[in-house]
Amino acid sequence: MNIGILGLGLIGGSLGLDLLERGHRVIGVSRQETTCFQAIALGSVSEASTDMSRLQAAEVVFICTPLGLIVPKFAELISHLDDATVITDVGSVKTPIVEALSPLWENFIGGHPMAGSTNSGIEAAQRNLFAARPYVLTPTTTTPKKAISTVSEIVLSLGANIYHCQPEQHDRAVSWISHLPVMVSSSLIATAMSEREQDVLELAQKLASTGFRDTSRVGGGNPELGVMMAKYNRQALLNSLQQYRQNLDELIDLIEQENWIKLEEKLQSTQSSRRQFNV
Amino acid sequence: MNIGILGLGLIGGSLGLDLLERGHRVIGVSRQETTCFQAIALGSVSEASTDMSRLQAAEVVFICTPLGLIVPKFAELISHLDDATVITDVGSVKTPIVEALSPLWENFIGGHPMAGSTNSGIEAAQRNLFAARPYVLTPTTTTPKKAISTVSEIVLSLGANIYHCQPEQHDRAVSWISHLPVMVSSSLIATAMSEREQDVLELAQKLASTGFRDTSRVGGGNPELGVMMAKYNRQALLNSLQQYRQNLDELIDLIEQENWIKLEEKLQSTQSSRRQFNV
Repeated sequence: MNIGILGLGLIGGSLGLDLLERGHRVIGVSRQETTCFQAIALGSVSEASTDMSRLQAAEVVFICTPLGLIVPKFAELISHLDDATVITDVGSVKTPIVEALSPLWENFIGGHPMAGSTNSGIEAAQRNLFAARPYVLTPTTTTPKKAISTVSEIVLSLGANIYHCQPEQHDRAVSWISHLPVMVSSSLIATAMSEREQDVLELAQKLASTGFRDTSRVGGGNPELGVMMAKYNRQALLNSLQQYRQNLDELIDLIEQENWIKLEEKLQSTQSSRRQFNV
Repeated sequence: MNIGILGLGLIGGSLGLDLLERGHRVIGVSRQETTCFQAIALGSVSEASTDMSRLQAAEVVFICTPLGLIVPKFAELISHLDDATVITDVGSVKTPIVEALSPLWENFIGGHPMAGSTNSGIEAAQRNLFAARPYVLTPTTTTPKKAISTVSEIVLSLGANIYHCQPEQHDRAVSWISHLPVMVSSSLIATAMSEREQDVLELAQKLASTGFRDTSRVGGGNPELGVMMAKYNRQALLNSLQQYRQNLDELIDLIEQENWIKLEEKLQSTQSSRRQFNV
């Protein structure tokens, strides 16, 4: 099959490596010529260009740009394609993408591979990045069955586990388990830094161990990504944050009231609840 | 030297392994006879007994019981000891311990080895548990120099990094980097569970990945330990929680106001602040 990849970063590059290995012709497009050369050298694409019109030859196009560029790049892209071409994206928020793109392109289906790495860019591309990882697809009631099956077959060939849901369901789910943790974790770092006595702050920094390391990890991550989550998934994230604030207030109340029995029940409940998550 | 260990769990047992190896005579005391047998079999003590009076032969006694038992066990212990015996403890909160014990025993010095394991009990004891880990000592203005140097020398021989500070400073520092993270992390789990649509909750549980795993880890830990932290370090923890709530509210406000520039600045600041912690 001829498969196009628009945006050759960690996700686009890794996708290319797997698809090329499975015998497809992979047409890569990047804004940067140097990225095109790197993608070819790494064996991530059959051919690469800065010219979007090359994607005309593709039967399916994966849009793998950063979240904020998916809609504008899509608008440029569709003028080059036949109506039959299936388009999918890999954005980590789905509602605004699907709402913007579905009315413009019948054969569009939103997607989100839940795979990543602390590194980014084509240099970080790796084989089997999607294997045994969740890959969410968000078809709407009007998405043609053929478009769904075409993308599903490719995704299954990567070894990923497919989940189908509505864009809003996806966005709420990732708000709980991905976007809220970033904000919770970032606030932890900011709070620890608010200690006013320099000796105590330095002591805290020296004594910090695995507990602080793990709880603060995602809050110390890429600030641009954090902003993107907040910007594109604002409503779901605000809802999660308000719920979080309520839970935190309940916990503060228990400690203020020295209600150790209820506090222990609450901590027991979160201990057992955590096992229900895929962690 | 004759060194006593009261309480043969992970910390007491590991301490014994190291001290025995360094040529000391280690006298262990546990409430459970089976624990005494295990400690001897593991090479964690030279001798072990359920009889506290055996500690009379010790020049230094480490109290390694759970936090809530340190004060009552100490009260039983001192009737058996000579005044010259140095006593130290390993409790993870220092102010209430030091306030209770210092007036009763001149040769007392509070301590807290920042070492642990997910497992507990004598079975989990291991050599070099304290090596290259922080070990806080909290002498007061009245602690005799000899008591400080005796305990310091033993701690240094374990390969630990000693920090001296006031009990209140220790408790504030661990509140930021150890106790607050537990409450923040536990609230995250409780919040994710508050999703009312069953499909979305199950999706969130399936999509949960490294971000959720790390941020929720300490919130899914031992509930009794969490309660101990809150009970014994209540004031410092409440202060940390109030500060946390303020930081969280600022972040919620920025997202509500769609102030993406300030949000990015905040996330950049937490990203760089995190590097100042020993993580």
